[in-house]
Amino acid sequence: MSTAVSPLAPTDVPDMPVVDGVKLATAAAGIRYKGRTDVLLAMMDPGTTVAGVFTKSKCPSAPVEWCRSKLSGGGKARALVVNSGNANAFTGKSGRQATALTAQIAAKALRCGVGEVFLASTGVIGEPLDATKFDGVLGSLAEQAVSGEWMEAARAIMTTDTFPKVATARVKLGKATVTINGMAKGAGMIAPDMATMLSFIFTDAPISAGALQSLLKAGVDDTFNAVTIDGDTSTSDTLLAFATGAAAAHGAPKISRASDPRLKAFTKAFHAVLADLAEQVARDGEGARKLVEIVVEGATTKASARRIAMSIANSPLVKTAIAGEDANWGRVVMAVGKAGEPANRDKLAISFNGIRVAKSGARDPSYDEAEVSAAMKNPKIQIKVGLGLGKGRDRVLTCDLTKEYVAINGDYRS
Amino acid sequence: MSTAVSPLAPTDVPDMPVVDGVKLATAAAGIRYKGRTDVLLAMMDPGTTVAGVFTKSKCPSAPVEWCRSKLSGGGKARALVVNSGNANAFTGKSGRQATALTAQIAAKALRCGVGEVFLASTGVIGEPLDATKFDGVLGSLAEQAVSGEWMEAARAIMTTDTFPKVATARVKLGKATVTINGMAKGAGMIAPDMATMLSFIFTDAPISAGALQSLLKAGVDDTFNAVTIDGDTSTSDTLLAFATGAAAAHGAPKISRASDPRLKAFTKAFHAVLADLAEQVARDGEGARKLVEIVVEGATTKASARRIAMSIANSPLVKTAIAGEDANWGRVVMAVGKAGEPANRDKLAISFNGIRVAKSGARDPSYDEAEVSAAMKNPKIQIKVGLGLGKGRDRVLTCDLTKEYVAINGDYRS
Repeated sequence: MSTAVSPLAPTDVPDMPVVDGVKLATAAAGIRYKGRTDVLLAMMDPGTTVAGVFTKSKCPSAPVEWCRSKLSGGGKARALVVNSGNANAFTGKSGRQATALTAQIAAKALRCGVGEVFLASTGVIGEPLDATKFDGVLGSLAEQAVSGEWMEAARAIMTTDTFPKVATARVKLGKATVTINGMAKGAGMIAPDMATMLSFIFTDAPISAGALQSLLKAGVDDTFNAVTIDGDTSTSDTLLAFATGAAAAHGAPKISRASDPRLKAFTKAFHAVLADLAEQVARDGEGARKLVEIVVEGATTKASARRIAMSIANSPLVKTAIAGEDANWGRVVMAVGKAGEPANRDKLAISFNGIRVAKSGARDPSYDEAEVSAAMKNPKIQIKVGLGLGKGRDRVLTCDLTKEYVAINGDYRS
Repeated sequence: MSTAVSPLAPTDVPDMPVVDGVKLATAAAGIRYKGRTDVLLAMMDPGTTVAGVFTKSKCPSAPVEWCRSKLSGGGKARALVVNSGNANAFTGKSGRQATALTAQIAAKALRCGVGEVFLASTGVIGEPLDATKFDGVLGSLAEQAVSGEWMEAARAIMTTDTFPKVATARVKLGKATVTINGMAKGAGMIAPDMATMLSFIFTDAPISAGALQSLLKAGVDDTFNAVTIDGDTSTSDTLLAFATGAAAAHGAPKISRASDPRLKAFTKAFHAVLADLAEQVARDGEGARKLVEIVVEGATTKASARRIAMSIANSPLVKTAIAGEDANWGRVVMAVGKAGEPANRDKLAISFNGIRVAKSGARDPSYDEAEVSAAMKNPKIQIKVGLGLGKGRDRVLTCDLTKEYVAINGDYRS
């Protein structure tokens, strides 16, 4: 496993405020890693609503199935238990038993219903998870939990991540100022749908489970679902949002519909938190040395632009060229061509970091190789493709493909 | 560029026989590479038929467009001109002018029609191809061409390939014994549809253009289209087959339909040549150290099995695990799950080189890590996935993803 922090790690890490009604605690339960925390318990006050979006994998992990079934049971939550080191995925009957046992242990510790416990696991696939390790651990975590500890929580859910990922926003909702805190872990096996393996959002705003679900679904499309590291979709992708409603005591109105006009500023801030976390996931792609933004314009539709952008973002040849600081726009043409979407070779225009290298289906005569080469040394690369067909536009984030990616993933399990 | 020959190169290179009616010559025209041949001229006797299958890229190269238009003009061929080093792709109007000029030069040298000249180019995309370099070169090649030179021809069309790829078969057709010779170049940007960037098949059998086209289309599906190196589809993929008909003089019947029962043995041999070349392409994937066969059984349909096999074969996480000699079947589950095809997690079975590591959706209790680890050191790895749903079965070939792949593609253009 990599130990050096990614050169793309954000330099300004926010001070994470308290979210009324949320307490956190972490522990080292020895699930897999030695000498680091690997369990997170988040406790929420009674009345907390929950919403979730999950992997579209046909082989989801046991915790994903658990959360899906509990969400359909009313959208109330009191606890979130997350472990790193073992994904509890493809573990058959023992996996289902492990989720049930973990939830029972948590429910007992918190004196809440088993159906109010949400679970997420990340790490190795296919190894049985020994849930008895949570016995004892969750009880003492419930006693120790405090309202700070956000960075520690973000750290406890990491696997090959090189830095903890947090984001926060404060925004007016009625007369109250509410808080939105989020954390995420990403690194590898990141691709839509959805991008991050695990992300959790907490707010004190009083929002119904239905409205929260709508917000989450709308927010994920241009954020987590627009990030890809390697095109590989995890069995465990989980994005959960919890709303404690504690801000109602300070004058925040109770919101039951996502379309409520009073929610406008909140919706924007909520989206910004998701976008911030999603970008951090791209910045911490395994082995990443460049953050890469792909912008596709002039497609026939937005959906077509997305598919073309994803084809470029997932192309190993494009990604290795960026790792080599090579403005190899020929490979971008290849990736446009293989996307299977409407494209006219002779109308294509391509820019790297604002420098146009190709137009009308051929090299831009004014293109200066030295200028482009210098631009490619930038840690953030934008590839913009103009198709010249319509008004469809979209944007995705990815990173380069380096030898470190191969090294990290070539001996991850051993 | 890599110079060491792939450790997966075949050790038994066939002696390539003559194909009556075909002459070959190569030259170093200085298209891009120094000190090696980069132009191939194949000359065919009058009466030669031709068929072709090409990339499905929406941004095909100029030579692909040239061949498509000439094929629709009757299926007669007298010359094939191939250059390596420059793909003449995404070169706009100058690309079309370069193909027209190359064909004119060849037609003049051979005293044939411009429409009987077929073209292929491989190498860098987006750089104008200076076709005037062929002037003089093709004239002297036409004079020097001989009926041997198959290995030299295969070498002249290489780019990052580490070994020339040839295959041959001799088979009865009526009273005559006919020959099928083939060559291919592959290495990177190999994915369906179709796999290899360039492959050329030559036979002295008397087969109509229509029958040859049917043979080619039927043969490519389980051979070149079942190979993927990196999921990237070239703008230039070209597979051409030429039939001189010279064997008619020795008693071979003239064949006008692919379904002609007299063609049965020929069809089998033709398919074997395609399969041999396709496997060599997988063996020479950029940076490859392992040849990987993915077999998917028990899918709902063959097409579903193919899509699942391709999802596994193109997964960077599966490919890096194999590079690390790690039987990481959790990643295989992930790749099955993301394929979007019918799959029941709890029915999955997975084997590596015949050793079952997972069954019924969980680790096989009898699975011995030491035995699997030893098997993973083999240069040929078979991953077999049983879905347990139906009778759909398919197979694809790929290779592992190594640091060398990144190194080769990170500084290919510079």
